[in-house]
Amino acid sequence: MIKKTTVDLGNRSYEILIGENILDDAGSHIRGLLNRARTLIVTDENVAQHQLFRLEASLAAEKISFETIILPAGERTKSIGHLETLLEAMLKTNLERDDMIIALGGGVIGDLVGFAASIYLRGIGFIQVPTTLLAQVDSSVGGKTGVNSPQGKNLIGSFHQPRLVIIDITTLETLDPRHIVSGYAEIVKYGLINDPKFFEWLEKNGSNLISGSKETRLNLRSEAILKSCEAKSAIVAKDEKETGARALLNLGHTFGHALEAENGYDEGLLHGEAVAMGIILAFQLSERMAICPPGDLHRVQNHFEQTSVPLLSSFSFTLERLLQHMTKDKKMADGKLTFVIASGIGKSYLSRDVDMKDVKAVLELGLKG
Amino acid sequence: MIKKTTVDLGNRSYEILIGENILDDAGSHIRGLLNRARTLIVTDENVAQHQLFRLEASLAAEKISFETIILPAGERTKSIGHLETLLEAMLKTNLERDDMIIALGGGVIGDLVGFAASIYLRGIGFIQVPTTLLAQVDSSVGGKTGVNSPQGKNLIGSFHQPRLVIIDITTLETLDPRHIVSGYAEIVKYGLINDPKFFEWLEKNGSNLISGSKETRLNLRSEAILKSCEAKSAIVAKDEKETGARALLNLGHTFGHALEAENGYDEGLLHGEAVAMGIILAFQLSERMAICPPGDLHRVQNHFEQTSVPLLSSFSFTLERLLQHMTKDKKMADGKLTFVIASGIGKSYLSRDVDMKDVKAVLELGLKG
Repeated sequence: MIKKTTVDLGNRSYEILIGENILDDAGSHIRGLLNRARTLIVTDENVAQHQLFRLEASLAAEKISFETIILPAGERTKSIGHLETLLEAMLKTNLERDDMIIALGGGVIGDLVGFAASIYLRGIGFIQVPTTLLAQVDSSVGGKTGVNSPQGKNLIGSFHQPRLVIIDITTLETLDPRHIVSGYAEIVKYGLINDPKFFEWLEKNGSNLISGSKETRLNLRSEAILKSCEAKSAIVAKDEKETGARALLNLGHTFGHALEAENGYDEGLLHGEAVAMGIILAFQLSERMAICPPGDLHRVQNHFEQTSVPLLSSFSFTLERLLQHMTKDKKMADGKLTFVIASGIGKSYLSRDVDMKDVKAVLELGLKG
Repeated sequence: MIKKTTVDLGNRSYEILIGENILDDAGSHIRGLLNRARTLIVTDENVAQHQLFRLEASLAAEKISFETIILPAGERTKSIGHLETLLEAMLKTNLERDDMIIALGGGVIGDLVGFAASIYLRGIGFIQVPTTLLAQVDSSVGGKTGVNSPQGKNLIGSFHQPRLVIIDITTLETLDPRHIVSGYAEIVKYGLINDPKFFEWLEKNGSNLISGSKETRLNLRSEAILKSCEAKSAIVAKDEKETGARALLNLGHTFGHALEAENGYDEGLLHGEAVAMGIILAFQLSERMAICPPGDLHRVQNHFEQTSVPLLSSFSFTLERLLQHMTKDKKMADGKLTFVIASGIGKSYLSRDVDMKDVKAVLELGLKG
């Protein structure tokens, strides 16, 4: 059974399809969107090993001809250098204005391919086929694309919505458990932003979603992914370019980005792990500001502890360096940082009125453990 | 006296200001658009010599602090390499989301800066201060931005509208006469697309516009620039992303781009010269197809001859190479080329029904002279 939801953006609206083994039918979902039966698949070495043959077979079954580019796996691929490689390949494939390309992989591939699509011939279409939990519940939806630069993550990029998102939950079966936990943090985030009932559901079902028996985890994951995509779609439909409400999706990210940056964006700290740590810090900050009740903070902390999120004190970060990263965040405007603050579970809001003393205090406590 | 026109694009509308010496008041026009009194000027070595001090003084007078980047002059600067240099400089200047940058120069600078603005932090604002006739009547208006690649011109880019266009006609006084003639071809184009009265006006006033006495040429230029900006604005407002009518602005460009490409985009054949030659070819093609009356073709040819546009036969191009370039044009869709055809002066329309035999015949005749 395929679950569906729509990102409602007028003539740029698109569907998100969620199901078991729909990767094997991807061709039939894609065919109707193509102007001619020709495309380019972009993926990485890891995904190529586990999933590429499935997508290729489904395209072949629909008589869609394709070429495939396999890029190195990992965050370093999200660079201007690899963007150039990809654009070069697109030019050589003679892709035309009405053609589309397919991103098969995690957030790195999705962000890079989306960005390349947005600037190739001033913009062509692309299709997201996310294969990690993080990409399925967050980065593949909403049209944020981009690459990293030495100065920070996603500083170069664009808003460019995909034409279709195909989410096959069976692709998660080959993932390392840490990557499941990492994606799970972004799922929890939706509950914490504005859906306390969803957070309650996760308190009850989270551990089975992460590591229950196969049938149980597949069912719970498909339900949580749909819920997450619906939550993100609703926010994106209201504020595509992040002039307001969309910034709520950055809950935990101002802290999280600083942690990732200080760790050099390597596999030692995954994005979702950093976000989970950042969400805890954001709730600690909110509690310290006497905005969030201590009980809600504890529920958040307990829930993440159960999913074995790393402790800030287990890294040898320094306060000074973390603060430096935070003040370089692109969410900075007019010299001030914007934080997502919570007055409780499911009650988040944006604030530009946070005292940096409180930010420091919360970080200091976390670093000491 | 400042002439004004507006590009009407909803909440992305912007003004075009045209006047004598308004560069010296640029700061006062810009100040109100800035979120904080800080900006970055991007220009090239030639323009830096003649005009930069004027812009800098006008910003200083308004207490707007700025940094300046001076790039090499010439088409080669419109590359991914220079794009990276510029983005790097923007990151180092710590430009924030609500900041803007200023493009001071010709089409190369405007296209590069606009593209950089469109992808820096997923898009910041920019201001066009075009200093060549070509940029003033064409490239600074309408939001087409981009860079070239080894495969062709403008293959990588985006649609990103400026927030303001400031056109000072006195900047044309330091231009080489060939560059005036080059820009003039794009002015003539607007008459030929859909304004036969404007073409008549140009038949009468063109030579004075190009090389009349100072007062005469300044007056005629400012009138023709306003008319051109109005014509382009009207088309862009109807079809920003070039899904239809905007493609009329490509009159002469399918041929013109092939000529430029074959000449290696060097100074031996300027863009406007190639466009003028391309427009003649487009009218010859239309006449050959028995769509355009011979009399109209002759008026077009005569008019361009008076402005000393180069002859196709004076280049040692071959038919095969030109055809190769044309079939690589990004306006190609589904393997077919789109041409702008004219059923007379001021009566242009798009056609995907052109017989390549006619295209070949027209090119062959032109190459023989």
